[in-house]
Amino acid sequence: MPTYSKEVRLAQRPEGYPDSSTWDVAEVEVPEPGPGEFVVRVELISLDPAMRGWLNDVRSYVPPVGIGEVMRALAAGTVTASKHDGYAVGDVVSGTFGVREYAVSDGAGVSRLDLDRAPMETWLGALGMPGMTAYFGLTDVGAVAPGDTVLVSAAAGAVGSIVAQLAKARGCRVIGVAGGQEKAEWLRGLGLDAVIDRREGDLLKQVRTAAPDGVDIYFDNVGGELLDAALANLARGARVVLCGAVSAYNEESLPEGPRRYMSLLVFRARMEGFVVFDYRDRYGEAVDAIAGLIDEGRLVAAETVLDGGVEAFPEALLGLFEGVNTGKLLLKV
Amino acid sequence: MPTYSKEVRLAQRPEGYPDSSTWDVAEVEVPEPGPGEFVVRVELISLDPAMRGWLNDVRSYVPPVGIGEVMRALAAGTVTASKHDGYAVGDVVSGTFGVREYAVSDGAGVSRLDLDRAPMETWLGALGMPGMTAYFGLTDVGAVAPGDTVLVSAAAGAVGSIVAQLAKARGCRVIGVAGGQEKAEWLRGLGLDAVIDRREGDLLKQVRTAAPDGVDIYFDNVGGELLDAALANLARGARVVLCGAVSAYNEESLPEGPRRYMSLLVFRARMEGFVVFDYRDRYGEAVDAIAGLIDEGRLVAAETVLDGGVEAFPEALLGLFEGVNTGKLLLKV
Repeated sequence: MPTYSKEVRLAQRPEGYPDSSTWDVAEVEVPEPGPGEFVVRVELISLDPAMRGWLNDVRSYVPPVGIGEVMRALAAGTVTASKHDGYAVGDVVSGTFGVREYAVSDGAGVSRLDLDRAPMETWLGALGMPGMTAYFGLTDVGAVAPGDTVLVSAAAGAVGSIVAQLAKARGCRVIGVAGGQEKAEWLRGLGLDAVIDRREGDLLKQVRTAAPDGVDIYFDNVGGELLDAALANLARGARVVLCGAVSAYNEESLPEGPRRYMSLLVFRARMEGFVVFDYRDRYGEAVDAIAGLIDEGRLVAAETVLDGGVEAFPEALLGLFEGVNTGKLLLKV
Repeated sequence: MPTYSKEVRLAQRPEGYPDSSTWDVAEVEVPEPGPGEFVVRVELISLDPAMRGWLNDVRSYVPPVGIGEVMRALAAGTVTASKHDGYAVGDVVSGTFGVREYAVSDGAGVSRLDLDRAPMETWLGALGMPGMTAYFGLTDVGAVAPGDTVLVSAAAGAVGSIVAQLAKARGCRVIGVAGGQEKAEWLRGLGLDAVIDRREGDLLKQVRTAAPDGVDIYFDNVGGELLDAALANLARGARVVLCGAVSAYNEESLPEGPRRYMSLLVFRARMEGFVVFDYRDRYGEAVDAIAGLIDEGRLVAAETVLDGGVEAFPEALLGLFEGVNTGKLLLKV
């Protein structure tokens, strides 16, 4: 067993895209668990768009990562030492362990992973935060109903790919938006009713063509031009589910807002934001629903796993914003 | 009885603010009612921000006014001739009679006004469209509850003044925003808990000071900077009721959207639009509630009545956008 653990710390707050000056890689001794604690060898680190927001010194639903602190990250791994009654050596767990090789935990926010039910990758994707976000955003905030026309942004991404497939399973007509022909092809293979390649431009027209009767639910992970295109093409009583605005996360100033927001009035529609943690008491319901669809072969849990260990984290995060992934993006430690 | 009736027609679509080239004033013969029709002598014409939108050749919840057509307007008056079984000479009615001295009607969309219950002015204000808009926007879209902090834009205007007073009657803490010290003083006299004079600038800071625990309901008649200031200061689970965007109605291009819309995510809040006509089956409920509060002395139905007849309509409409009115703005014919 190694005695040193590498970790990635926030060196300074980035303006725009993070670069090499944003991060420090350090080595520390592998921690010993104190009473009521255990140590996890981190095996997979989750790359999430929300990470960019955690780097800004602004009030949000979680505090920012402090300068000099280990970068916050969801991760999964195996318990290697324990003085905690609830966790034994060999247990496989997920939690907010951070971008590091070994983490110490008191069990707060930690979940035990059943690898007989699904592999570790899926517990960070379709059965993890992205899956929970997709499920509660679509069912609770979006109030999805059979027959709805559902437009999904970043549909080949971690959240979008689950939203799109859940909506299909609920009897909706589903339109996915993705960047590039390869992803578009992949989405068609998942059975979506229409696919928009955002690189082909004129999103307003593309959405109108794909949804001539209007969009009942727009699941927004990206903001920007696509949000305006969706607002211009709503159906009466539509729901715009605000999940993210990845197009803006690396902007140096507050980007323009949705110019067509008054469409909400014309179409008697609503735009609503949510934070998945508010649904934590109901995660079991979502896991059962999604795992059930996976078992029935009706939902594909896709992951893109990068190699390179924690040192590769800075590049992996940029890859996320470039859209290198299909499905959930993970970094193997 | 006069034999000629003046009317104001749309001569050409304005860019920006309407001016003298926008309108034609014409004289036509006073119409005779056909079978199933009656004629109304128009006595009061309602000036509404929505009128500006009706001048644009764009899809909305009602079709635009056509070039050469009489300007659409809600109005009230007295029946002077009738071949309609439901209406007799002397009946006092309101309807979409247009900017004209005499209108012919088949009764569609016409309401009989009970002048024993309230004066004609009030039937176009607190008990008319503005009152209905205030009531259903606050209760149904805003889901108002006792203890809510309610921020009201254009609070000295036709809709805003009713929203503010209804919210007070429902046990809310009410903050009104208005332009100028005179209106601010008037709002304080209505019993509002705090008043913001938008001419004093830095709306974001003024809202934060007036609502340190955040805004539960923002009733938006104006859009623009105040919408962003409200979004930055929401309480968790807040509702932004989109009723109008008067700050943008005379813009020549689509104005910027609300830059801070992602606050809806941080605060788990929603922004929802509505059109009052959707609630027409429940107008009676709103009239009873508002008339009851008036009778109890708990709600002031304010109107500003301009003189000058239909020829004064172009100037009166500009006055509306300048905010010459306290309460409902009406033009006396």
